[in-house]
Amino acid sequence: MSVATAAAFSFRVKDLTLAESGRHQLRLAENEMPGLMALRAEFGESKPLKGARIAGSLHMTVQTAVLIETLVTLGAEVRWASCNIFSTQDEAAAAVVVGPNGTPEAPAGVPVFAWKGETLEEYWWCAAQIFDWSAEAAATGADFTGPNLILDDGGDATMLVHKGREFEEAGAVPADSGDDSHEYKVILDLLRASLAESSDRYTTIGSEILGVTEETTTGVHRLYELARDNALLFPAINVNDSVTKSKFDNKYGIRHSLPDGLNRATDVLIGGKVCFVAGYGDVGKGAAEALKGQGARVIVSEVDPINALQAAMDGFQVATLSSVVDQIDILVTGTGNLNVVTVDDLVGLKHLAIVANVGHFDNEIDMAGLEALEGAERIEIKPQVHEWRLPTGRSILVLSEGRLMNLGNATGHPSFVMSNSFTNQVLAQIELFTKQSEYPTGVYVLPKHLDEKVARLHLDALGVELTTLTPEQAAYIGVPVEGPYKLDHYRY
Amino acid sequence: MSVATAAAFSFRVKDLTLAESGRHQLRLAENEMPGLMALRAEFGESKPLKGARIAGSLHMTVQTAVLIETLVTLGAEVRWASCNIFSTQDEAAAAVVVGPNGTPEAPAGVPVFAWKGETLEEYWWCAAQIFDWSAEAAATGADFTGPNLILDDGGDATMLVHKGREFEEAGAVPADSGDDSHEYKVILDLLRASLAESSDRYTTIGSEILGVTEETTTGVHRLYELARDNALLFPAINVNDSVTKSKFDNKYGIRHSLPDGLNRATDVLIGGKVCFVAGYGDVGKGAAEALKGQGARVIVSEVDPINALQAAMDGFQVATLSSVVDQIDILVTGTGNLNVVTVDDLVGLKHLAIVANVGHFDNEIDMAGLEALEGAERIEIKPQVHEWRLPTGRSILVLSEGRLMNLGNATGHPSFVMSNSFTNQVLAQIELFTKQSEYPTGVYVLPKHLDEKVARLHLDALGVELTTLTPEQAAYIGVPVEGPYKLDHYRY
Amino acid sequence: MSVATAAAFSFRVKDLTLAESGRHQLRLAENEMPGLMALRAEFGESKPLKGARIAGSLHMTVQTAVLIETLVTLGAEVRWASCNIFSTQDEAAAAVVVGPNGTPEAPAGVPVFAWKGETLEEYWWCAAQIFDWSAEAAATGADFTGPNLILDDGGDATMLVHKGREFEEAGAVPADSGDDSHEYKVILDLLRASLAESSDRYTTIGSEILGVTEETTTGVHRLYELARDNALLFPAINVNDSVTKSKFDNKYGIRHSLPDGLNRATDVLIGGKVCFVAGYGDVGKGAAEALKGQGARVIVSEVDPINALQAAMDGFQVATLSSVVDQIDILVTGTGNLNVVTVDDLVGLKHLAIVANVGHFDNEIDMAGLEALEGAERIEIKPQVHEWRLPTGRSILVLSEGRLMNLGNATGHPSFVMSNSFTNQVLAQIELFTKQSEYPTGVYVLPKHLDEKVARLHLDALGVELTTLTPEQAAYIGVPVEGPYKLDHYRY
Amino acid sequence: MSVATAAAFSFRVKDLTLAESGRHQLRLAENEMPGLMALRAEFGESKPLKGARIAGSLHMTVQTAVLIETLVTLGAEVRWASCNIFSTQDEAAAAVVVGPNGTPEAPAGVPVFAWKGETLEEYWWCAAQIFDWSAEAAATGADFTGPNLILDDGGDATMLVHKGREFEEAGAVPADSGDDSHEYKVILDLLRASLAESSDRYTTIGSEILGVTEETTTGVHRLYELARDNALLFPAINVNDSVTKSKFDNKYGIRHSLPDGLNRATDVLIGGKVCFVAGYGDVGKGAAEALKGQGARVIVSEVDPINALQAAMDGFQVATLSSVVDQIDILVTGTGNLNVVTVDDLVGLKHLAIVANVGHFDNEIDMAGLEALEGAERIEIKPQVHEWRLPTGRSILVLSEGRLMNLGNATGHPSFVMSNSFTNQVLAQIELFTKQSEYPTGVYVLPKHLDEKVARLHLDALGVELTTLTPEQAAYIGVPVEGPYKLDHYRY
Repeated sequence: MSVATAAAFSFRVKDLTLAESGRHQLRLAENEMPGLMALRAEFGESKPLKGARIAGSLHMTVQTAVLIETLVTLGAEVRWASCNIFSTQDEAAAAVVVGPNGTPEAPAGVPVFAWKGETLEEYWWCAAQIFDWSAEAAATGADFTGPNLILDDGGDATMLVHKGREFEEAGAVPADSGDDSHEYKVILDLLRASLAESSDRYTTIGSEILGVTEETTTGVHRLYELARDNALLFPAINVNDSVTKSKFDNKYGIRHSLPDGLNRATDVLIGGKVCFVAGYGDVGKGAAEALKGQGARVIVSEVDPINALQAAMDGFQVATLSSVVDQIDILVTGTGNLNVVTVDDLVGLKHLAIVANVGHFDNEIDMAGLEALEGAERIEIKPQVHEWRLPTGRSILVLSEGRLMNLGNATGHPSFVMSNSFTNQVLAQIELFTKQSEYPTGVYVLPKHLDEKVARLHLDALGVELTTLTPEQAAYIGVPVEGPYKLDHYRY
Repeated sequence: MSVATAAAFSFRVKDLTLAESGRHQLRLAENEMPGLMALRAEFGESKPLKGARIAGSLHMTVQTAVLIETLVTLGAEVRWASCNIFSTQDEAAAAVVVGPNGTPEAPAGVPVFAWKGETLEEYWWCAAQIFDWSAEAAATGADFTGPNLILDDGGDATMLVHKGREFEEAGAVPADSGDDSHEYKVILDLLRASLAESSDRYTTIGSEILGVTEETTTGVHRLYELARDNALLFPAINVNDSVTKSKFDNKYGIRHSLPDGLNRATDVLIGGKVCFVAGYGDVGKGAAEALKGQGARVIVSEVDPINALQAAMDGFQVATLSSVVDQIDILVTGTGNLNVVTVDDLVGLKHLAIVANVGHFDNEIDMAGLEALEGAERIEIKPQVHEWRLPTGRSILVLSEGRLMNLGNATGHPSFVMSNSFTNQVLAQIELFTKQSEYPTGVYVLPKHLDEKVARLHLDALGVELTTLTPEQAAYIGVPVEGPYKLDHYRY
Repeated sequence: MSVATAAAFSFRVKDLTLAESGRHQLRLAENEMPGLMALRAEFGESKPLKGARIAGSLHMTVQTAVLIETLVTLGAEVRWASCNIFSTQDEAAAAVVVGPNGTPEAPAGVPVFAWKGETLEEYWWCAAQIFDWSAEAAATGADFTGPNLILDDGGDATMLVHKGREFEEAGAVPADSGDDSHEYKVILDLLRASLAESSDRYTTIGSEILGVTEETTTGVHRLYELARDNALLFPAINVNDSVTKSKFDNKYGIRHSLPDGLNRATDVLIGGKVCFVAGYGDVGKGAAEALKGQGARVIVSEVDPINALQAAMDGFQVATLSSVVDQIDILVTGTGNLNVVTVDDLVGLKHLAIVANVGHFDNEIDMAGLEALEGAERIEIKPQVHEWRLPTGRSILVLSEGRLMNLGNATGHPSFVMSNSFTNQVLAQIELFTKQSEYPTGVYVLPKHLDEKVARLHLDALGVELTTLTPEQAAYIGVPVEGPYKLDHYRY
Repeated sequence: MSVATAAAFSFRVKDLTLAESGRHQLRLAENEMPGLMALRAEFGESKPLKGARIAGSLHMTVQTAVLIETLVTLGAEVRWASCNIFSTQDEAAAAVVVGPNGTPEAPAGVPVFAWKGETLEEYWWCAAQIFDWSAEAAATGADFTGPNLILDDGGDATMLVHKGREFEEAGAVPADSGDDSHEYKVILDLLRASLAESSDRYTTIGSEILGVTEETTTGVHRLYELARDNALLFPAINVNDSVTKSKFDNKYGIRHSLPDGLNRATDVLIGGKVCFVAGYGDVGKGAAEALKGQGARVIVSEVDPINALQAAMDGFQVATLSSVVDQIDILVTGTGNLNVVTVDDLVGLKHLAIVANVGHFDNEIDMAGLEALEGAERIEIKPQVHEWRLPTGRSILVLSEGRLMNLGNATGHPSFVMSNSFTNQVLAQIELFTKQSEYPTGVYVLPKHLDEKVARLHLDALGVELTTLTPEQAAYIGVPVEGPYKLDHYRY
């Protein structure tokens, strides 16, 4: 059984229909991901990733499929898992497995270990598969065990290697403490089984890895902690803090997907409504702009006085939630903090007010408190849309059970936004693979000229004509003609 | 078999699930239709429509269900059909038939003759059913044949009565001419069968009718033609030209549903895109505002220099379609005219440009020409979203096969917008029923004080506090304190 | 002494400097008045106004100078007065009197009777001069007494003729009643002197006049009253209600001049401020848009529920003034009504809140009440900007003493807006002069095709490309290819 | 003669009128500068600047007067000069010199050496005066020569000390090289005279100075160069890069003052016009928003692809100047670079296009090239507004001779914006004076908690209610409850 067939099996591709549907969607998405397509054009021949063995752990969506095929076009071998048990789009996975010219029987694509609705046990089994490159080694007679690069989103793949090595060094996997989460127990079981089979699997794998590129705030946070504790095994590039990532997907992604999710969930007219946006960071800025653009009246809350002043200067009323709660038709939270919306707030809202989280985990809203509220009753209007009847006699509509509604009620960030993020990922992979000496173990952001390059690759698609500095002008402001143009602390 | 049971049968209600789901949706919609709910509160006891027998022909949606139950609350008896073969929401119809306290076995609601996906024969059979009040007459021992009011959308119900009477007067239904549309043949067959059964059915029905209230531009146009030709059988109120109808559903409805439809259909990021909006009437104004609110660059076209100047003063580039066609990512047409987008225009668009009609019939875009274009190929991406591969090697994405995409790819006007339109309908029904002497046969718009009343009933829901004129102020500008406040030609 | 010399004398032109400065400004204004310049190009040779003798009464500004010279280019003879004692720009008047090729000693322009800061006696003397065409008659040997057309703004010129004729018919000018305003006494004195000289001067003048075109709401109101009372002496065209007048100068003029006036008066940052706009008609819409565009938070008040609903749908909070008065930084009134802002409101404002009237007379704000308020003290910060110290210890800043601050603190409507209004005026003059049979005595609005023409003449200057209907499209919507395109009740 | 009298003399205060007028304006400005007033309230008793001797060099405007009196309220002694020969508002200077309770004969304020329209020789004489504290030393018997703090804008004061000390160390002031600017010769002359009088004046002064706080990009740039070259004599705080400075005055200041300047200069309607904004940094963002807010169509140019992508995502067309030059009505440049607008561009503009610089020096526009253009003629329309007739027959309107038109044609940043900047200045002065050990020689930005404090002090005035983190929330995101809230690289 070929590697790809195994992957196909693992992925449970049943027939060509799914893959063909996925292929159509890939084609449309490619048109919206000009950054990735430009990298294919620029590097498709020189193949700077030839020799790269990439273990990818990132939502297995149509956009990720375009990313994976870009990595392959640049010469890389790839194995892939999702980083979330629900986020896989099966048709995208199928298309990637089958490949542009393959069939379900003779898949010619990339081994993908992901399907929509994995159990936690399945999820971590999939994660382990992206580190098992024995089939690839056997196929080529090469002498390696695992990947030499990780492309990560949230840090699960990176964590698996670090934990695996840690327990191998200790010679034992700790027993479950009573307090461990179910998920942590699953991980310990997996690594316990691995240790029983091999005393140095993850030690070897870790030693082969040249670095990791990480997509998210959470994953980056873990990396800085590892670095601070001198526990980081290999260099890491923090893709999250590229301007073309953080200032684009947060702001412009939410501007797009918040109203989209509200509409799909409720069909309620946004115009004329009183909307409250908790938080005026990039997410809140995008949310507020979108709602204003639909004719809503927007009230904002903030804890940071600088952001609060920005909100005021942008024309928004800035108030605490509790002081205006009884005027609110649509409540949006985008802070990254917890308990931003309390049960008291929920109970105080207008009848049938809509509650939408676009920030972070479901704990932005005190969903646990709502569930524990005596006399509250939950009625499913449709999947991801629940009416909660409150003891007051009023009801509220909670979207996606308090989780990210732009994912749960809409389809997350559009392709064009993801193209910016993923172009950063690919450039970061090339950096780590081709300039190893420049990146000793540590955590880095991409150099600004690459951040600018990501932007540059997305201009043509929008019909943007860039102006070129004259040498005289470049000298006058002390930058190269071709950039980078700004100091590191420039805020955009 | 009771009337309601017959209706239940005609509607094919199978079980309570559908009706219960509809009932949930009605409850949510009621919260977004404050105008109708206010009329229930104001007139629920006095029941000004007691004795009214209303034949309704209007899309059988959740919003219409709220309208129907409002009419019933005001004392009317109602029979209903949809005015479009596809637009019925079955759960809404089921809920109306079953009624708030009924069951599928013992329906206690309103006879509804409508289901999603009727044939043309079924459609016109349903239309005929709303004029057959024999069961109601029998149940009460009353002496009537049909309804005494029509509530119409598009004019099909009104036309059926006029044509029926015309052929009864002529004593014969004409044979099909070779050129008749299939639909017209279906109508002729229906009326031929009617004439075979009764020589004066529609003559009698027509004589019982006190008037019609009409919702749409098209229907109103037919009414003015009938009046001009002295062929109008009863008075008509043109609800379409109430300010709270035409300036609200066109502008604010489209502002809401255009981006909604684009998102559901394609998930393409609107921000940064070049969007073209053909027409800067109320529909175009709403479309342009929505796209601008999402960060698109909007170019507008116009034939009327006044509207063109408005577009320019609102900050939009105004250009002909052909002069900028190769820059367009999203092409929106909202003119009410035909062939606004030609095949040449379609062929000239950017690769995978999106083509969306929010104006009128599918002939706004030359779909027939596209279908006839040699070398063009149509690929279904998903229902209502088709890629057309063009001989140029480029493709375009056509939404809803060129028909109204805010209906086909989204869910049409939201409840709050419809509440404005339907509150006009109810007030117009009350006018015709209670002030017959004030409306001799002819076509009328609602008096301005009622138009203002419609607006007034929607303010509380949005937290709007209205200012009241002092008597001194009212005298100064020469209006009553309670309105109406403006001259008829005021443009808002 | 030539007529022009007399005018120059009356106007008090002292030297060429003033005229030259005016000439520069005219040249710049011409560039912003494409409608008038297009009329010069279209009609400069055919001279449709040849034989027209126009008595103009309209603010003698730079823009009016361009209007006057356009009338002359089209063949008319013109005499001019201002319609306001303060609004004359002396350099504009000088330039018109001297003419493009004249000198102060040998003026070759138009007799203008207007200067900045007239007394009421001077004002009405000037008004009388535009009806005295004896010099022109003598110069040409022609047999006429006065003008054959009036171009009016506010109706003073029209009123003078009507009153003059009325008293001549009665044979006497009434004595001053005790209640007459000072201005009315001045008028009676003037007409008494006239009657002493001639028993039929204004009777003759009135009989020679073919019609009047009137610019303003107030003037139009007087004309409709005269027509209603069968007292109108000649036909009148209501230019005020052309779409290109009322929807343009109210909305876009105020959008421009409100922030301009605020800035010139106070230099206070508008961004972040809480602004209140009383009235959401066209003036209020323009004001609200301008303030929002500067990053202010805008609250609106309305008495008309339709306009209130529009404000809400446009994203504004709608509240009564008294309910939010203590939050307001900038209070704008644009209603056309009186006592919209009471003394209680003024006293309740934030410290140093700015009070700005862009609506109507100074009675929009209860200035009389403020002046009478015990303990209130008025301090001039600079001309047209007064701090009022209130008994509360707080102060407010009142602009232009409660009068129109877009005139008092800024420079009124910009040339481009006035070009729209004045192009309507010229077309209306041509209508009355060339199509006398189509306008029996009565009050008319300009036919829609001319309204559209006005818009059309302003498109090129903004780079607007208009789309042309195909004959098939025109037939489909039932309009001529070249327009007019809309029914009369269309609201734009 | 007392110190204050000397200052009054130097300032040329003639009578009380000027000071009283300034005092009125100060009172209004204080209301718009809540940050400074809050510092007076917080520190007015503890007087943390007691003992501070501040040499200030910053535009002597009304806002600066509020700054100076704040420093005095906090305990400092102050001497002041302007940093620009034209920017002094004489009434503000007079008010500061006279002081709240003084008279011209017995001034009780601060010695100010500044008047509108200084020669370069006068300018540098004034600059030298702020370092001569002999009168103050004599008055108190204290043992010092000069100030112990500098508050600088542009770095002239700092440069004078550094150059003075450099030449004293060298023992001689260099002779004028042929290439030196006139201004540099003036400086050399001044220091040559000083050296003739004293061999160590600036060496002594430099040794007494605890630090400098610097306001501008240019000044900060010089400081970083000095630090890099180990030539910096004392610590410096870069106030320019506080978020509440750079992100506020650039963006919100320009948003306010660009349309203000356009209106005062030209009265041209902005709505509907095609405006071009060169540069989409903070200045360009503010400019583009302002013009869009007035209904203009805005085209943007950029050299940095990230900013270009932002412009596109914000809905603006992005093009090179030369590609659209013939469509432009209003050309705005805000880049900080030179020759952004070439003579070819100027010649290519539409007739009477307006050219406005809000970026930097007059070399943003090639004014030298324009002056050298054969056949070009310059006509003064009014001060700061010039028509340039071009050889093409077209003209353009150049504002403020190509210099910053928001200063030349309007009144610069409004008080509220300056309050943010100046509150940073005061806090920076306190830091340097009270925490000397924390600031060894080097260049610093203000700690984030002070940046946040500046914002915090401006919230109440705008009615902003801030939300407070719970301890649980603060712990969750790892920040103190009272802030600072963000990492240093956060971009806002």
